[in-house]
Amino acid sequence: MQALTCRNLVKTCLRKEFQNRSFANFQKFAKNHHQKQSQKLLLTTSGVLAAVIGATYLINQRKLGVVNCATTADKQKKKPLYFKTIRADLPTYRRDEIRKHNSIENRVWLTYGIGVYDVTDFIPRHPGAENIMLGAGEAIEPFWNTYQQHNTIEVLRILETFRIGNVHPDDALDTSDLYDPWINEPKREKKFIVAAERPFNAEPPAEDLVKNFYTSQKDFYVRNHLPVPEIDIKTYEIEFVNEKSGKTMTLSFDELRKRYKPVEVTAAIMCGGNRRSEMMEVRAVKGLRWGQSAVGNAKWKGFRLADILKDLEVEQNETDHVHLEGLDTDPTYTPYAASIPLNKAMDPRGDVILAFEMNGEPLSRDHGFPIRVVTPGIVGARNVKWLGRVVVSKDESNSHWQQKDYKGFSPSTDFDNAEWEKSPAIQNMPVTSAICTPANGSKVKVKNGEIELKGYAWSGGGNRIVRVDVTTDEGKTWHVAELEQEDNAKAPSGRHWGWSLWTIKVPVDKNSKELKIWAKAVDSNYNVQPESFENIFNFRGVLSNAYSKIKVQLT
Amino acid sequence: MQALTCRNLVKTCLRKEFQNRSFANFQKFAKNHHQKQSQKLLLTTSGVLAAVIGATYLINQRKLGVVNCATTADKQKKKPLYFKTIRADLPTYRRDEIRKHNSIENRVWLTYGIGVYDVTDFIPRHPGAENIMLGAGEAIEPFWNTYQQHNTIEVLRILETFRIGNVHPDDALDTSDLYDPWINEPKREKKFIVAAERPFNAEPPAEDLVKNFYTSQKDFYVRNHLPVPEIDIKTYEIEFVNEKSGKTMTLSFDELRKRYKPVEVTAAIMCGGNRRSEMMEVRAVKGLRWGQSAVGNAKWKGFRLADILKDLEVEQNETDHVHLEGLDTDPTYTPYAASIPLNKAMDPRGDVILAFEMNGEPLSRDHGFPIRVVTPGIVGARNVKWLGRVVVSKDESNSHWQQKDYKGFSPSTDFDNAEWEKSPAIQNMPVTSAICTPANGSKVKVKNGEIELKGYAWSGGGNRIVRVDVTTDEGKTWHVAELEQEDNAKAPSGRHWGWSLWTIKVPVDKNSKELKIWAKAVDSNYNVQPESFENIFNFRGVLSNAYSKIKVQLT
Repeated sequence: MQALTCRNLVKTCLRKEFQNRSFANFQKFAKNHHQKQSQKLLLTTSGVLAAVIGATYLINQRKLGVVNCATTADKQKKKPLYFKTIRADLPTYRRDEIRKHNSIENRVWLTYGIGVYDVTDFIPRHPGAENIMLGAGEAIEPFWNTYQQHNTIEVLRILETFRIGNVHPDDALDTSDLYDPWINEPKREKKFIVAAERPFNAEPPAEDLVKNFYTSQKDFYVRNHLPVPEIDIKTYEIEFVNEKSGKTMTLSFDELRKRYKPVEVTAAIMCGGNRRSEMMEVRAVKGLRWGQSAVGNAKWKGFRLADILKDLEVEQNETDHVHLEGLDTDPTYTPYAASIPLNKAMDPRGDVILAFEMNGEPLSRDHGFPIRVVTPGIVGARNVKWLGRVVVSKDESNSHWQQKDYKGFSPSTDFDNAEWEKSPAIQNMPVTSAICTPANGSKVKVKNGEIELKGYAWSGGGNRIVRVDVTTDEGKTWHVAELEQEDNAKAPSGRHWGWSLWTIKVPVDKNSKELKIWAKAVDSNYNVQPESFENIFNFRGVLSNAYSKIKVQLT
Repeated sequence: MQALTCRNLVKTCLRKEFQNRSFANFQKFAKNHHQKQSQKLLLTTSGVLAAVIGATYLINQRKLGVVNCATTADKQKKKPLYFKTIRADLPTYRRDEIRKHNSIENRVWLTYGIGVYDVTDFIPRHPGAENIMLGAGEAIEPFWNTYQQHNTIEVLRILETFRIGNVHPDDALDTSDLYDPWINEPKREKKFIVAAERPFNAEPPAEDLVKNFYTSQKDFYVRNHLPVPEIDIKTYEIEFVNEKSGKTMTLSFDELRKRYKPVEVTAAIMCGGNRRSEMMEVRAVKGLRWGQSAVGNAKWKGFRLADILKDLEVEQNETDHVHLEGLDTDPTYTPYAASIPLNKAMDPRGDVILAFEMNGEPLSRDHGFPIRVVTPGIVGARNVKWLGRVVVSKDESNSHWQQKDYKGFSPSTDFDNAEWEKSPAIQNMPVTSAICTPANGSKVKVKNGEIELKGYAWSGGGNRIVRVDVTTDEGKTWHVAELEQEDNAKAPSGRHWGWSLWTIKVPVDKNSKELKIWAKAVDSNYNVQPESFENIFNFRGVLSNAYSKIKVQLT
């Protein structure tokens, strides 16, 4: 019998689609771009339980009214060692037996350390239910290695509530060859406010955001979904596939350079979860605790996707999609992926580019080196970094991030009754704005009977911001802010992708000690932000675009 | 000295632009299309005071907290005959003297009947200030003939406050040759709720609106700005002008038919003032008291404007505009006019058509016979009826309706401090919805513990409605309505011009006697309606897209 190492498990567990379709492809990527890692990518799919556990954790936290956010502090707490402890009250199982429990009918078991867990009843409640099944009957360790945000005291406690037994000592898993996918993460700016370390998710302080119309790479928020791939530009290639005709092209960076004339596009990119922390004040939601700085505005340089798709002999139609796959992959080698409507990609006025420069600099690793897609006006999640593959298909991407994440729901819809297929994947983002200075709760000096406010405003779909209104008396009086934005000739409405910075000096009453300040933006379709988070609440905490409201002390 | 008839006044007062550019054109239109009227179009520009008076009226009404709405009842009240009465306390003036007062420096005088009025101080406060000046020193009658909405007891009273003298009996105006531009208005549906008779503005009862996905011509709201022109399709022509190249084309209906293949487009058209009556509950605004039925949805058939512009050798660019001029004209022969961005007109996916059919029928006179422009996704005001002229220009239309009307402002901006040039003309409309049945304030039977609600939802810019949420407990619980709409393959997001009808059965508490119901729609950009009219209030009462809120009694 083969030794039960993680290295061996990968052979039996990789999912069929991957084996059939993408294996060669990913092998190649692995060879080209993840040289060191490819030797070590030995992860099994069994660990998908991590996601289950994470979701359970969330649900429990929600019940407790506790906000979900895996913090560094969590990880520093001493973890309970349940998974290293024999539970004398429970039976012992051999791995052959455990492995039989790999379907709903036979119950779904998983192992962590020497613990055996039955997670069957939880599966239907998890967005990645189909993924969980891939790991049925196997060990959790490889996935926990990647999804370290689940590696917290709370998750371990909840996991233990699923415990049904102990792994037989002869079947203990040797994890000594487990590759650490995080070992080559780039160094990050210290000033970042970190929402999660692995994958890295962080935003700059809000006051830094409004200092410059173009956000430097160092100030630009980072939203990674997986470990950052290490890519050698000399061997880097992108594969382009036209599913209808079967035509494919594989182009290196140099070939792209030679064939296509780069263009410059000013565009803001905003995370779908930006300002989630404000929605969290209504009640807990699943997702990273983003402040209001998961957004940035840059001048991007890159190749027009529309030009490349023409060479791929793609014909315009109303219903096809363009899949964008990154070179960042999960333990099953499944890449981060998203799709956008073909319409957007083919429209020269849609300005979708494969960007290799940001404000005149090559992209940093955290921002997608060597190439990320910039899909102006569209939620950050579709602006795929470390682009590896582009597929034109009649179907939307079936990635988790397209189908079971980044969607909006009615306030009373919950995790348990969400019909994911009925809700469209977020593409164009709605109008929003934020007050960046002063900070909420801060003390502000009054000068000449006024205080100065600064912030940003943006709307997806190419819609220009036409007005930002500010009130200090809960809407009785509204003041109109000054805007800094690209002018109409450069970026007309419908093709205005950049953000607008705004400034205003509002008069304050001499006797006021405290001031409530609200801001709202109006875009060129005259859509306006909704007033409160209560009525736009959604359990994923996305699309948090209600009025920006702060309270400050006057001195 | 020439007799002082209205016929003669026209020769001296027509404004320069008209004389230089459009006179020949309008003469031709007059000859071709307004045969009877052309003999009688004898109106002078002096009457532009009507607008001044109207605005004064509004301002006074606002001060009084009275809503502006010229009703039939107003007109039936016995009017004061100030203008037929000599004021012995005031001096008498000859028309030569009156005519000298035709500038701000010399004061601006106008006459009505035997009254002389000095309106100088009011001029800066009126959006049509530049038009008022055209009538300086002249008589008001010809304009009052067209703008009959000002012909009310309140306006006459206010006019009299401007009185400074009496017209010398020898200079009385002979109005016997004054043409009545309203004499050939079409017959209207009796069921219409009439917001104004002249020009005709009316909407169907809301419950009729939601009976059919396609709104019949008889149920489709009518928003006219001027008298309906009488047009003979045999002599009807449209002039197309490319200002840059100088190229022009004049095409008859038959020529359009021969040259261009018609296409069908499903599109809702909504008045910019739809639902104004709800905003009026916050405070008075200028404009017609529209309910929620100034909207309709139809299948339009017509010629693609993009095809015609290609033949006009128009080249796509980001900043040009397409002017659309109707054959409905004011007393200075100035046509109703609007413009849309060239981008929209040139984009085959923009679906701008010159429509000649509505739900398979030729357009009725009230809906623009023989051709109206359909600019899908864009405010009704740019869907110009009785199309006479199309001009591609580097500038936006300078018509009153483009520059000084149909714009949004901040809630605290008022008539007096509005900077019209800073606010963009409304093009794409924001997301909205309305509860059509039951009616607000009505009694509703509860069946099986539920009541049924129906309504419409729509968003401009081609944005599909993705959800309508309904609450009966002020937002504590939201229910998701069923939608009836064109499917994604026919009308994908970004090109979804039709409305969505929605239905929902909401459970009601047995013990409730009264129910507050709110509805809000979400579009494919995930923009959502704002909650209240207070914070989107604007003094023109446009863009009234807050939550639809009603209260009903349960039986």
